[in-house]
Amino acid sequence: MAEATLGQIAARFGLVLQGDPDIRVSGVATLRDAASDTVTFLANPRYRRYLAQTKAAAVVVDQASARDCTVAALIAKNPYATYARIAAWLHPEPVAAPGIHPTAVVDPSARIAASAHVGPHVVIEAGVELGERVVIGAGSVLGSGACIGADTRLAARVTLYRRVQIGQRCILHSGAVLGADGFGIAQDVDGWVKVPQLGSVIVGDDVEIGANTTIDRGAIDDTVIGNDVKLDNQIQIAHNVRIGAHTAIAGCVGISGSTTIGSRCMIGGAVGIAGHLEVGDDVVILGLTLVSRSLTKPGIYSSSVPAMEAGVWRRVVARLRHLDGMFDRVRALEGRHKNSDPEHS
Amino acid sequence: MAEATLGQIAARFGLVLQGDPDIRVSGVATLRDAASDTVTFLANPRYRRYLAQTKAAAVVVDQASARDCTVAALIAKNPYATYARIAAWLHPEPVAAPGIHPTAVVDPSARIAASAHVGPHVVIEAGVELGERVVIGAGSVLGSGACIGADTRLAARVTLYRRVQIGQRCILHSGAVLGADGFGIAQDVDGWVKVPQLGSVIVGDDVEIGANTTIDRGAIDDTVIGNDVKLDNQIQIAHNVRIGAHTAIAGCVGISGSTTIGSRCMIGGAVGIAGHLEVGDDVVILGLTLVSRSLTKPGIYSSSVPAMEAGVWRRVVARLRHLDGMFDRVRALEGRHKNSDPEHS
Amino acid sequence: MAEATLGQIAARFGLVLQGDPDIRVSGVATLRDAASDTVTFLANPRYRRYLAQTKAAAVVVDQASARDCTVAALIAKNPYATYARIAAWLHPEPVAAPGIHPTAVVDPSARIAASAHVGPHVVIEAGVELGERVVIGAGSVLGSGACIGADTRLAARVTLYRRVQIGQRCILHSGAVLGADGFGIAQDVDGWVKVPQLGSVIVGDDVEIGANTTIDRGAIDDTVIGNDVKLDNQIQIAHNVRIGAHTAIAGCVGISGSTTIGSRCMIGGAVGIAGHLEVGDDVVILGLTLVSRSLTKPGIYSSSVPAMEAGVWRRVVARLRHLDGMFDRVRALEGRHKNSDPEHS
Repeated sequence: MAEATLGQIAARFGLVLQGDPDIRVSGVATLRDAASDTVTFLANPRYRRYLAQTKAAAVVVDQASARDCTVAALIAKNPYATYARIAAWLHPEPVAAPGIHPTAVVDPSARIAASAHVGPHVVIEAGVELGERVVIGAGSVLGSGACIGADTRLAARVTLYRRVQIGQRCILHSGAVLGADGFGIAQDVDGWVKVPQLGSVIVGDDVEIGANTTIDRGAIDDTVIGNDVKLDNQIQIAHNVRIGAHTAIAGCVGISGSTTIGSRCMIGGAVGIAGHLEVGDDVVILGLTLVSRSLTKPGIYSSSVPAMEAGVWRRVVARLRHLDGMFDRVRALEGRHKNSDPEHS
Repeated sequence: MAEATLGQIAARFGLVLQGDPDIRVSGVATLRDAASDTVTFLANPRYRRYLAQTKAAAVVVDQASARDCTVAALIAKNPYATYARIAAWLHPEPVAAPGIHPTAVVDPSARIAASAHVGPHVVIEAGVELGERVVIGAGSVLGSGACIGADTRLAARVTLYRRVQIGQRCILHSGAVLGADGFGIAQDVDGWVKVPQLGSVIVGDDVEIGANTTIDRGAIDDTVIGNDVKLDNQIQIAHNVRIGAHTAIAGCVGISGSTTIGSRCMIGGAVGIAGHLEVGDDVVILGLTLVSRSLTKPGIYSSSVPAMEAGVWRRVVARLRHLDGMFDRVRALEGRHKNSDPEHS
Repeated sequence: MAEATLGQIAARFGLVLQGDPDIRVSGVATLRDAASDTVTFLANPRYRRYLAQTKAAAVVVDQASARDCTVAALIAKNPYATYARIAAWLHPEPVAAPGIHPTAVVDPSARIAASAHVGPHVVIEAGVELGERVVIGAGSVLGSGACIGADTRLAARVTLYRRVQIGQRCILHSGAVLGADGFGIAQDVDGWVKVPQLGSVIVGDDVEIGANTTIDRGAIDDTVIGNDVKLDNQIQIAHNVRIGAHTAIAGCVGISGSTTIGSRCMIGGAVGIAGHLEVGDDVVILGLTLVSRSLTKPGIYSSSVPAMEAGVWRRVVARLRHLDGMFDRVRALEGRHKNSDPEHS
């Protein structure tokens, strides 16, 4: 944990400070529970009610909220992003010491930067390349020819199959599996024939991949994850999917094979996207939605029903089955009106 | 496997025995397939039809079903829970021998009870604490400062990130990942800024966590799992979620950030719960439901549609798009009736 | 990578060749991006538009499409399955060298075929049996008494709990967990009682199991996966489920306890199937469907709604709550017509 004055923070991050520049802080906190040596922030309006009572040294706020601040204010255009940068500065990641743990099993043909850290019980197969300051967490397994760019960190127990490529400054969380065979099977008269999965997985720079997320290798071409894509936990990305830059995907989403997702999309939790579709740039999909057709126009899409009292919902479901007939009945009623109603005769 | 007489079982578990106390049993079985030296049980009424033909030595049943028992009956208020206790007694878990496997990599600053078992290829970082009789399965990785209470067992290949705390008598299954970074990202003009995840995960006593389930560390405060919470496989719990005591959650559920779940809730499979919500005590949510608003009243909630023949369902979906207009059309019809119907004029 | 002439391929796979048998190929490619020394295929009609411009040496096609082929055609009844076999022949899997890596921890009572490969940091407990040419990927853990048939391959970081049985020629991908305790808990007055999970998992021959998929052991009887079952990534199969031969299940599906799935079923992504149900043979279930009743008739089933523009969908959802009342209102309108309409009087 670092320590700084509010003046130093304002200078470093280009903020206007409303308050005493000599106040010292040593960490971040929530608005509600902040101690007097911490910086906090207000971004989500639902926490505004805590602003008046906060005990923090300073709050990162936008211009409009600064006047309601009873403590010092660090005024930012984007308080949440600014808070994130201040928090990263005050709470730096522990640096992993360079070197290869003696229990790691490393093929002699692997090329590993001297500044890289390879943890205990890691397995590195032939031809693997690790860039400067790469960190490989304990128990991870890197298949032959896998390649990782500078400053990328793998947590414990990550698997990269053969030839998977990861860019720079990525973070892969524990249990992630990149490059397993795509689900390619061909139906034949007496059962399934496995379709060899010969492509790989290519991940850009600044990508974060959550715990137990899986990204399959391509069948022939590669599966491609663009720069600055952010993937939460337990996401399943099938073979030959392509995801554009800056797209963020929440947990438990499944994307079927050969679908292309555009740039700057935001996809909510547990969304399912069918195969061979196109989702354009700047598409927002709300949680638990099924995407079974291409969505080429930017916009917000949804198809999930929010929870109701089960008894009410059971009656709705019973009626749903008869919805088609209901439309016919209404049309029939309208037809009779046309015939009998003086207005329409 | 232990062996016991029905009389011993009745005495040990406080049951009324209807039958010969000297009959010996050596294990448990299903009603349908029981051999003559086993105990079975009847709890789910759908298996009642097997009661008359069972070959078991005895059946754990409630008072009402005891008279239909053609073999010995062990009469219990709660046959399923009583069966569970008898089964655990007749089939005790193998005890793991105390000691640290020579292939485990253990930081010298870790404090490990002499009665604890640390399996092969385990990695234990600085400052970790393991209580009495803790079992750490092969290949597990415990980050610096992780702390595990007495009698807790981790299966093979579990990850605890730094500072995660687990209570006593917990069971964590293989592939579980606790304490990975929450999905905290702030949008800025040229992409995403990572929000440091500085909290931890605190798990109470008597908690079971299923295979490949993930629980993220808090952003600032901790993610908290209460006592006696039961989590099935492949559940995703986001940062700063809090789950109350005795709540049980089935597989594939996703709970988004900062949501609070009450005590004694039961949540069905593949439910999705949005972020920043409150789910009160004693709430039951049926499978595949989306929760996008707080549910503060105890009760049963649902929003999923059961499978129909696809042709029927396709027509329902086509009509759904026009449901809003349909309500308007019915209102229009009603208005005309008001005008034309003598009853309303 | 092997090399072959088109004539050799036609002979080996029993195909009619339309074109020069001496053309040499050394790999496979997509229709669109094929180089002149590759074989490609046309199976999905959506890629037909690329047939005329392909640069491939030959295309595997059905009889009907062969005449539109501007390059050589390898004519097959089932082009996709035939392509799969050719691709596997031209791109053979690397063979793992027999032997046990010195870092593997192997119990002396385990019986391991001399032709088997056991990777680095593998843990093999007492009584395990590995058949001929079995491959165990790095970091995998096989519990006591686990048994694996000939030619089965486990990728890195797979867990088999005690006594799990796997047939021949199976593929298990990284992060798969077989045999963790089923989610068996009995409610008692002061909390949950764990129900011992005493069965195991039995997997047939020719089964593929995707990355991070979990299959729980049975409570008393076993969980059973039939021959030639194909499971994608992140599937959750609960205790005592039985899946019939040749059934294929896409990613993120969850199947609850004691449900039986028939043979030759196809289950789409993220489907949820409740417990204690029967799904018959030859049932197809579309993605994101909830199955909460038994489906005994072959056919296609669905219950998911495709994404709409969120504003449109929000109005549909608001109306859904009132669907029950709407049916009553339409019935009332129909009743008035009966009374007032001359047609019905």
